[in-house]
Amino acid sequence: MSSTGTANTRIPVTLIPGDGIGPECVGSARRILEAAGAPIEWEECQAGAEVFKRGLPSGVPPETMDSITRTRVALKGPLETPVGFGEKSANVTLRKLFETYANVRPVREMPGVKTPYSGRGVDLVIVRENVEDLYAGIEYAQTPGVAECLKLISVKGCEKIARFAFEYARSEGRASVACATKANIMKMTEGTLKRVFEEVAPDYPDIESWHVIIDNCAHQLVKRPEQFGVIVTTNMNGDIISDLSSALIGGLGYAPSANIGNEIAIFEAVHGSAPKYAGKDVINPTAVILSAVMMLRYLELFEQADAIEHAIGVTLESGVLTGDVMGYDKGTPTTVYTDAIISNLGKRSETWTVREHTPLKLPKLAPEADYVRPATRAVVGLDVFIESPFSATELGASLMELTADTKLSLKMVSSRGTKVFPPTGAITDTLDHWRARFIIRENPGDLPDDDVHELLQRISSRHRWMHIEKLQEFDGELGFTRDQGEN
Amino acid sequence: MSSTGTANTRIPVTLIPGDGIGPECVGSARRILEAAGAPIEWEECQAGAEVFKRGLPSGVPPETMDSITRTRVALKGPLETPVGFGEKSANVTLRKLFETYANVRPVREMPGVKTPYSGRGVDLVIVRENVEDLYAGIEYAQTPGVAECLKLISVKGCEKIARFAFEYARSEGRASVACATKANIMKMTEGTLKRVFEEVAPDYPDIESWHVIIDNCAHQLVKRPEQFGVIVTTNMNGDIISDLSSALIGGLGYAPSANIGNEIAIFEAVHGSAPKYAGKDVINPTAVILSAVMMLRYLELFEQADAIEHAIGVTLESGVLTGDVMGYDKGTPTTVYTDAIISNLGKRSETWTVREHTPLKLPKLAPEADYVRPATRAVVGLDVFIESPFSATELGASLMELTADTKLSLKMVSSRGTKVFPPTGAITDTLDHWRARFIIRENPGDLPDDDVHELLQRISSRHRWMHIEKLQEFDGELGFTRDQGEN
Repeated sequence: MSSTGTANTRIPVTLIPGDGIGPECVGSARRILEAAGAPIEWEECQAGAEVFKRGLPSGVPPETMDSITRTRVALKGPLETPVGFGEKSANVTLRKLFETYANVRPVREMPGVKTPYSGRGVDLVIVRENVEDLYAGIEYAQTPGVAECLKLISVKGCEKIARFAFEYARSEGRASVACATKANIMKMTEGTLKRVFEEVAPDYPDIESWHVIIDNCAHQLVKRPEQFGVIVTTNMNGDIISDLSSALIGGLGYAPSANIGNEIAIFEAVHGSAPKYAGKDVINPTAVILSAVMMLRYLELFEQADAIEHAIGVTLESGVLTGDVMGYDKGTPTTVYTDAIISNLGKRSETWTVREHTPLKLPKLAPEADYVRPATRAVVGLDVFIESPFSATELGASLMELTADTKLSLKMVSSRGTKVFPPTGAITDTLDHWRARFIIRENPGDLPDDDVHELLQRISSRHRWMHIEKLQEFDGELGFTRDQGEN
Repeated sequence: MSSTGTANTRIPVTLIPGDGIGPECVGSARRILEAAGAPIEWEECQAGAEVFKRGLPSGVPPETMDSITRTRVALKGPLETPVGFGEKSANVTLRKLFETYANVRPVREMPGVKTPYSGRGVDLVIVRENVEDLYAGIEYAQTPGVAECLKLISVKGCEKIARFAFEYARSEGRASVACATKANIMKMTEGTLKRVFEEVAPDYPDIESWHVIIDNCAHQLVKRPEQFGVIVTTNMNGDIISDLSSALIGGLGYAPSANIGNEIAIFEAVHGSAPKYAGKDVINPTAVILSAVMMLRYLELFEQADAIEHAIGVTLESGVLTGDVMGYDKGTPTTVYTDAIISNLGKRSETWTVREHTPLKLPKLAPEADYVRPATRAVVGLDVFIESPFSATELGASLMELTADTKLSLKMVSSRGTKVFPPTGAITDTLDHWRARFIIRENPGDLPDDDVHELLQRISSRHRWMHIEKLQEFDGELGFTRDQGEN
């Protein structure tokens, strides 16, 4: 976060117009920020479709990376990932390469924009973890017919996002933070965010906090969204509930976002590049303008941010609305809408309250890689994932025979989380994908790798395996879950 | 599916009253079904809190399992999993042990129940895959500070649920099936459902079909829910969007569900056991009654199902509403509401259209375990997950040295899906959890397990690993994803 926002020094910001309607949205925001007297020095850079077509598979050229590394702040339009040019989305690339771990998505009822929720004062912020979880995109075809994706969640990542959510709430004077997870089903991964959130909460006694199961959170967001202030959640859950929430207030045309890390912040609308509306002067630039307002506050240019927010409020109250809400034949053109906001700078909205903001304090955590240090630890067994056309009983018998004289004994075989050997009487439609769980036969202790290698060689002699997980204990607690039917 | 629903033979059904408000809901449904003349022989069985307290960790006693195995159909109330008694939810246990792979959640605007969506005719069904995905609950503490959950998706599981969704749409005369996935981020797991859905769709030319990204689906469900007929989706996504959807029509009091497998079907309300309302004659039993209506249709007792649906419509139209919508001080008591429905049997609702139903055909897939058979396959490398306090550069150098004279060479080291060695210039907050990717140095072909064992022994000599994945190719296609920054 920069604190150099005085009238004399201009703050450098990387500006990425982006694809499709991006240049119109970003152009509108830039004109408004300049008219509001925000002391910004724009560095215009490229990313997206044109860059992919030049043959760069990331969609982000080195000069854009350099600019962001230097300015540490970017305002960007939507980027396209043209089919057949890039494997990864350029939007995701930017977020990941700069470790912008917090995705911030404010959702607030706009004056004059009619929705089924109008008049209820929806005003919430989704804080979504932006780096970990299924979004790491680590996938394997484990058998020809079974694929796996790894959901990875770290204590450190959870502490960063939980503290960030509380700090963000404080910076906006918000009264509450809810944590939304699926900890009841995924006790170790989703459960980590719940546990860390509850550990961190007492550091913020001024803010009310509670946990809500993610599916109930989605239900409550539709039923009574006004109950929420800030909601913090994991990456994939956050993806779904933030898009859900933006529909409560009139759609993506009013959905700004920020991707904030401890080094770099990127501000952007949530919507896509909508090529069919590009260049027609019909699109709603409010989402990018509101993203720019978030950026001004991040830069501690509070006065200009407040002025623009009021001007947007006055403009919408006066019934000046774009085609996305009015119909594209009747909407105010983008440029006219922008002019209206500029002409309303200095006026104060009657109905729209601008929150009082204070500088956002980013959480600084200890830099150690081994952030969590258990007093005791041990390897107590091994899960081996096997591809086999055998039945559960045949496979179980074969594995028992193969490993009879090793240090490890077969505890069970399971199929997608349900124990099938020894048989339980369950009706399970098994595939050729099995998990065999081995535990130390006697004298539990730390299993040496030599015994692991021995076991693998035995299994390899007769079966095809593709995945192994060591079963560990940390501070005497099991570091693995039991299966359905396993005792 | 049974077809023995004639007037002379009674169909045996397992009845589980459940916990909290369960017995009142189930009792209401039972009275209504009996009054409607449904030829059912109830076998009342236990499951839930009392069973956990008797010391059975599954919450489901053998006699209940036996009854369901025999009757193949169950109607159940909500079950509690008391804290400290059971590790797994008894609700989930029943679904998993009987391979009820399809969770069906109809969501329809009810007459007289006011919501922000009233009058728009919301009438959709979420078909959620019920067995696979993150819900298998397979988790590992991989390092003291990093946890992993496995998301497993099979081609066969996807084909079953995709075909089920189309068959279900047909049985209700619905015009469309949308498939909601996150295939753009998880191409192998979520992508499997999208691909299989698109392969299966041409078998149902009478039904319109399309794919929608899950976050956009959540957005559209709030913005324009009336556009959807049937939505088919994976387990975790389905959990969130089905609870989202039930809020569109007045909440969980009106949310029935079915868990259907090829052998067994379990019908239940979505809501919990709400102990604070138990025994007070104030709760809304409609969700269980509507679940029982779904059960009647599954049993092909269409006439009784239609009669009850009409009677519910007439009752709600007449303004007889329970405490969940009226306020618990003003609502119609559960028993009075039930009496009203019974007294309205035989009347036809003016505003509520009962769909014409035909028998549901369950998809029968080939029973082979190796459901997908590639013509060619090969192991081309290995991902080894390592716990290390080293920096990325130190770890990378050490691994290169250790494996210099093996068949495999280090391609990269990554941290939660982002490549960090060889360095890319990205800002990545690394942990002590790394993934090292090794590929066959030359002459790509099928890597023998001996070389895998050799590599592991080398790594074990200096580093702590906890997870291995073989990198495979099937029919010449990569069976693994590339990381952010990996080319």
